[in-house]
Amino acid sequence: MAIKICLLLLLTLSLLLLPIHCYTKHQEQEEEEESAEGALFECLVKCDKQPRNEEELTHCEQRCVNEYQDRKRQEREHDGGGGGGENHHHYEPEQQYKTCQSKCGRQEQGQQRQYCQQKCQWQYEKQKREQQGRERGRGDDVVTNSNKKSEEKQESKNPYFFQSERFVSKYKTQEGHIKVLERFSKKSELLKGIENYRLAILEANPNTFVLPHHCDAESVFVVVGRQSYNLKRGDVMRVPAGSIVYLINRDDNERLYVLKLLQPVNTPGRFKEYFGVGGENPESFFRTFSNEILEAAFNTPRERLEKLFGQQRKGVIIKASKEQIRALSQETESSRGRRGESWGPFNLLDQQPLFSSNLGQYFEASPNDYQQLKDLDVSVGFMHIKQGGMVAPYYNSRSTKLVFVVGGSGQFEMACPHVGTQTKQQGRKEKQGETRTDVHYEKISGRLSVGDAFIIPAGHPIAIIASQDSNLQLASFGIKGSYDQKYFLVGQENIWNQVESEAKELSFKMPAREVEEIFKSQEQSYFLPGPGQREERKGHNVASILDFVGF
Amino acid sequence: MAIKICLLLLLTLSLLLLPIHCYTKHQEQEEEEESAEGALFECLVKCDKQPRNEEELTHCEQRCVNEYQDRKRQEREHDGGGGGGENHHHYEPEQQYKTCQSKCGRQEQGQQRQYCQQKCQWQYEKQKREQQGRERGRGDDVVTNSNKKSEEKQESKNPYFFQSERFVSKYKTQEGHIKVLERFSKKSELLKGIENYRLAILEANPNTFVLPHHCDAESVFVVVGRQSYNLKRGDVMRVPAGSIVYLINRDDNERLYVLKLLQPVNTPGRFKEYFGVGGENPESFFRTFSNEILEAAFNTPRERLEKLFGQQRKGVIIKASKEQIRALSQETESSRGRRGESWGPFNLLDQQPLFSSNLGQYFEASPNDYQQLKDLDVSVGFMHIKQGGMVAPYYNSRSTKLVFVVGGSGQFEMACPHVGTQTKQQGRKEKQGETRTDVHYEKISGRLSVGDAFIIPAGHPIAIIASQDSNLQLASFGIKGSYDQKYFLVGQENIWNQVESEAKELSFKMPAREVEEIFKSQEQSYFLPGPGQREERKGHNVASILDFVGF
Amino acid sequence: MAIKICLLLLLTLSLLLLPIHCYTKHQEQEEEEESAEGALFECLVKCDKQPRNEEELTHCEQRCVNEYQDRKRQEREHDGGGGGGENHHHYEPEQQYKTCQSKCGRQEQGQQRQYCQQKCQWQYEKQKREQQGRERGRGDDVVTNSNKKSEEKQESKNPYFFQSERFVSKYKTQEGHIKVLERFSKKSELLKGIENYRLAILEANPNTFVLPHHCDAESVFVVVGRQSYNLKRGDVMRVPAGSIVYLINRDDNERLYVLKLLQPVNTPGRFKEYFGVGGENPESFFRTFSNEILEAAFNTPRERLEKLFGQQRKGVIIKASKEQIRALSQETESSRGRRGESWGPFNLLDQQPLFSSNLGQYFEASPNDYQQLKDLDVSVGFMHIKQGGMVAPYYNSRSTKLVFVVGGSGQFEMACPHVGTQTKQQGRKEKQGETRTDVHYEKISGRLSVGDAFIIPAGHPIAIIASQDSNLQLASFGIKGSYDQKYFLVGQENIWNQVESEAKELSFKMPAREVEEIFKSQEQSYFLPGPGQREERKGHNVASILDFVGF
Repeated sequence: MAIKICLLLLLTLSLLLLPIHCYTKHQEQEEEEESAEGALFECLVKCDKQPRNEEELTHCEQRCVNEYQDRKRQEREHDGGGGGGENHHHYEPEQQYKTCQSKCGRQEQGQQRQYCQQKCQWQYEKQKREQQGRERGRGDDVVTNSNKKSEEKQESKNPYFFQSERFVSKYKTQEGHIKVLERFSKKSELLKGIENYRLAILEANPNTFVLPHHCDAESVFVVVGRQSYNLKRGDVMRVPAGSIVYLINRDDNERLYVLKLLQPVNTPGRFKEYFGVGGENPESFFRTFSNEILEAAFNTPRERLEKLFGQQRKGVIIKASKEQIRALSQETESSRGRRGESWGPFNLLDQQPLFSSNLGQYFEASPNDYQQLKDLDVSVGFMHIKQGGMVAPYYNSRSTKLVFVVGGSGQFEMACPHVGTQTKQQGRKEKQGETRTDVHYEKISGRLSVGDAFIIPAGHPIAIIASQDSNLQLASFGIKGSYDQKYFLVGQENIWNQVESEAKELSFKMPAREVEEIFKSQEQSYFLPGPGQREERKGHNVASILDFVGF
Repeated sequence: MAIKICLLLLLTLSLLLLPIHCYTKHQEQEEEEESAEGALFECLVKCDKQPRNEEELTHCEQRCVNEYQDRKRQEREHDGGGGGGENHHHYEPEQQYKTCQSKCGRQEQGQQRQYCQQKCQWQYEKQKREQQGRERGRGDDVVTNSNKKSEEKQESKNPYFFQSERFVSKYKTQEGHIKVLERFSKKSELLKGIENYRLAILEANPNTFVLPHHCDAESVFVVVGRQSYNLKRGDVMRVPAGSIVYLINRDDNERLYVLKLLQPVNTPGRFKEYFGVGGENPESFFRTFSNEILEAAFNTPRERLEKLFGQQRKGVIIKASKEQIRALSQETESSRGRRGESWGPFNLLDQQPLFSSNLGQYFEASPNDYQQLKDLDVSVGFMHIKQGGMVAPYYNSRSTKLVFVVGGSGQFEMACPHVGTQTKQQGRKEKQGETRTDVHYEKISGRLSVGDAFIIPAGHPIAIIASQDSNLQLASFGIKGSYDQKYFLVGQENIWNQVESEAKELSFKMPAREVEEIFKSQEQSYFLPGPGQREERKGHNVASILDFVGF
Repeated sequence: MAIKICLLLLLTLSLLLLPIHCYTKHQEQEEEEESAEGALFECLVKCDKQPRNEEELTHCEQRCVNEYQDRKRQEREHDGGGGGGENHHHYEPEQQYKTCQSKCGRQEQGQQRQYCQQKCQWQYEKQKREQQGRERGRGDDVVTNSNKKSEEKQESKNPYFFQSERFVSKYKTQEGHIKVLERFSKKSELLKGIENYRLAILEANPNTFVLPHHCDAESVFVVVGRQSYNLKRGDVMRVPAGSIVYLINRDDNERLYVLKLLQPVNTPGRFKEYFGVGGENPESFFRTFSNEILEAAFNTPRERLEKLFGQQRKGVIIKASKEQIRALSQETESSRGRRGESWGPFNLLDQQPLFSSNLGQYFEASPNDYQQLKDLDVSVGFMHIKQGGMVAPYYNSRSTKLVFVVGGSGQFEMACPHVGTQTKQQGRKEKQGETRTDVHYEKISGRLSVGDAFIIPAGHPIAIIASQDSNLQLASFGIKGSYDQKYFLVGQENIWNQVESEAKELSFKMPAREVEEIFKSQEQSYFLPGPGQREERKGHNVASILDFVGF
């Protein structure tokens, strides 16, 4: 149970051993199918994603069922018979879920059992989501298309939320993949300020090797996994542009998850990987050079070189043998930074949390404190909200946060004055004597599941709520991370405490005493009990990539 | 007579007491009308704005009168009768001016009297200008439209000058407004280098309160007003992004003027204010959150919250009672910077002027000297040119200056090699043996009145001239302010002194002795006597926001 | 034999004496003609530029000859007779070359003779190239047009290579010129990351003076010439924006070459020169101001000013007399940096080379070591590859290099994953179970001659090869130059040495022993023997601006 990340900096070798998560491979292999059932599920999930009251929800769900029945009827008419095999397929994720759960039942200890169940749930949701992604990809049925349109429409109003399907495979083999989120500036003009940042996630099966490569981007890696051999969960690594990196997942059972922030150095928003070692897949960049040049450079006949650069066809993430992994795991030298200082990985969770209460914790590594984050001016954060809890509404003073859901489920609501207001103002003539206030806040919201990402722009008030049955765990990168402040708007430590009561009286047009009374009603700080009456529809415990036991 | 600006940084309260200017409220209320008279005035002002000879001027003015007569005739035909009330309106600014002047006549001391008269004049010009702005806004008459077109055409050739009407109200109540200048990159491609800076001006009536808010922009405030209780004219405050700011104008008679430079932190060139306290107007961002979340966050039933966030409807700048202002004025703690250092306001005019002579002074706070200006790399400057004087032609080595006319009137001329030359070069084939010089300077010029703004790009030679009858006072922000130099091109301290006479001989193709003789003819430095034969048409003394007495 | 660059910083004068190269003026005057012969030569050069096998080359050359014969026939038909004089013209470069060579033959010492011959060759190639540039400029014949199209097509696939004709004259007189390379972002979206950098080259005849001016760009000058009076070859000068600069070439025989990197401070990618002294050509910016303002500023009647600013008509680079040059050469004070530190020029070649072997050397001045390069974050490098040698394939970790060919000839090959891959990925749906690898490298290549420029983006593996008969000499600016590393991919010091053999075994899918054997076959480091079987077609030795003797 170990992974290895090798950063070649200057002429120094770095071996970093990383943890993985127990996600066994045979499950992964069976997750590829598509169906009317999938569409139904997708539709139901969509109903569930948008916060609404029970009545609307029932109505939405009914519509899903109707559409499902229509589609089934059509399929029967078009395909004729022969759909027998399908049933088997479509119920697989559900069946797998049941099998997985029953296995967990055999475990005795309560905590391990709970953890096992969470993983079943997470795996199930992941499979379903990927199924939906494929459904949407086909786009050959009316239902999906109309959904797509409304989704796009919704997105133009919500450029800050990215469901996990928005991460697209850049590299994919049987043993894992590297997925990258679309360019921010392509999604919305409002994201132009962060156009030179990209978010990526690497997943690799047990006993695998990710081929050595470098990248034309500065990057920060965060290990989102459990404690392991010699690298701890929450470890953060700064990988300078051009460093040669390779990884091994030496665990026998668990998958490796690494979240990456990339800052391209050549063209804004664009980066590529460069594989020197390799063959046909990944293509080695050596194959680009003329034979004469290669022969001269390597001082070797072209036949031998053609052989050397012609064997590898398995892709970027490949299976490794026990012996190979053992050999690769021996050295443990750490990487060196570009300034000659030691730039080994550091652990985010070793330090004191920045904020903490019995309902949650927030850890942050700021570029003010960590030399290796300084030139990128990027902070790294981990937020943990206990089930049923919420973080008190707050805003970040100057940093824009890119947040990735690492574990659990929940939702967020954010007030945004930029969305939807642009057209309103343009061309509007000022009337005489008019009282004018050029600000209106749109609600930006999203239901959060593992793998989703969202953006919190600077100054935007936000509330994040964990679901009733799972701890919500978030990893984040903070652009312009130095000298950033979190200003809480509610709770004992809220920023309004510093405003005189006369100012509040004037602002709210209400007696100061009444205003103060309300602002003092919340006795907790930072993390608060969430809205208790919601979320009960969902039955299962939802697992997390992070083992939250002991978090 | 005091104003208060509160910056909430970290958990510290800052109370800054600012001065205001005597601009009584009843005058403001009566300034809202529109008329053919306004159009006439506008037309005449336009004639006056463009430097021309007396003959052209007379011709231009005659055209204005003709257009005025045409329009009057049309109005009579269309409206039928009933325009009786109009006359009353249209002559109001003029009448007010007379009343104001006669009040001044009662004051005994010469200096106070002169100052009083200047304010009358300034108020009069301001009202007329706002009147014209409205005229132009309507755009329902041919005269204005054709004027508009020629104006636009002129602007494409002069992207550096902004008449005061180009500041647009973002917030406006009966008690004041916040106006923002259009985005620079929208005006011209040439301003792309400063696209992430915005210029704004806040004006607030006596005894008013500006509601607490924060902003997704870094900013610098400059008080452009007179010495006051505990803040001095020329005080500069750095307001970090996300800081909660509120202001009071505790003066009984004078208006508050604050000039702001903003550097948005989310989307280039775009920023918004965020009001937490408030109700319907300004809308509180709390109203965006779901009721369940608000109830949980505040631990308060929704009815009470709905009441709390439903009362305020008066807008962003509101009247405050004597008692409220007294209470808000007691604390005087100063703000703290983000680096833990003291970041209180500092005064630009306390230090030695950078350049000074008997005809003018220039003060500058550079990011090299002031920690709080360092991360923005912005300098703040004040230039004062005595009536009839001019600043010797000069250029700034690397900084682009955004200049705002604070007091007086005058004009500028600037040599610009970028304007109008782009098309010429494109696609032009190089001929054989051709002597080629790829540079031609266009003259950029403008007549300056209080409230106008202009840009001086780096390297551009400029001359600024005060009118014969008023001291010209300019406040400026310098983008890329560090290590900037002002290089004077004429006068005793001109930079050509450092060039050997042989180089001048070669450059001018004229005997060195003759060249040197001319360059030594000007015996003054920095500020010089201006061109004396001009400007005599204008009769009135023009006042300034800054009390220039003792400047 | 000396040149002078004067930087006026603050109020300090700097006199920098620069060297020139022996390129006598009468040769320059005769180089302006155009012909079918030129087109033939151009066509042949094009055949030669693209690496191909002998068969294709013969075919290409045959096509050139056919086109030449067609054109000659057409000329005879159209022009009638009377083309007698042309012949004289068209063979001039060839004849000059022969005369030049025969002069060299009279010199006794082997090294001087070789050097003399190289200069003849270089001058010949330069003349031919300029001839071709003019041919291409005319664009009035089918041959050139079709060539042009294929050239453009080629360029869209190769945005990194700029033949010397892409430098366009901004200033040109009989005594020299200043040429500027097109804006990078206009050539390709991929170059957006360096859009605010420009490359320029100044050439001035013996005994000339470049008029004083300043520029709205930060800049770095590199002297690409031989050791001289008091400035050495390889000297680097940082010229802050707004500094007044003038130069003299006080050598009697040699031309001055200065390579410049510019970083505009006003509008991204755009800069202009500002001439204060001057007259009609170069136009003095003083001429832009109104007469009244000039009269007041200079305290001088307008007649005298009109005379002062009306004489100079010769342009920016003019002939100077012996006496003037002597007077201008006396002062030798050095310039001061903007931070008060001494910012005199420093010499790149004085220090230890960063890498060196018997086949080449690489010198670099990094912003980590040189204060004057720090704010621009730009490095300056010189690479020298002995004839027949090559630099081992390598990549730069984070810096993008703008490279200029200073001497000799050769070629480069570079692997680029960005070119041509954009469309492929867009809109491509992920298939199930697919092994995906989102990277393919295109070969970017170019034949290098003196005056060409090319770009090496960060992370891009490149090989550069000197031709068999000339030492290739390259000057380069490195954008984002701090903390950049050169990672060699082949040779004894290659970065794969740091990767364990098991990792190579896995990557290449080949036994570790075999892989290691190949990687150890090259016993040299950094600079290697090039592909020996090529390049023999070219007979002449090719000279260099840099005197490589003793390099």
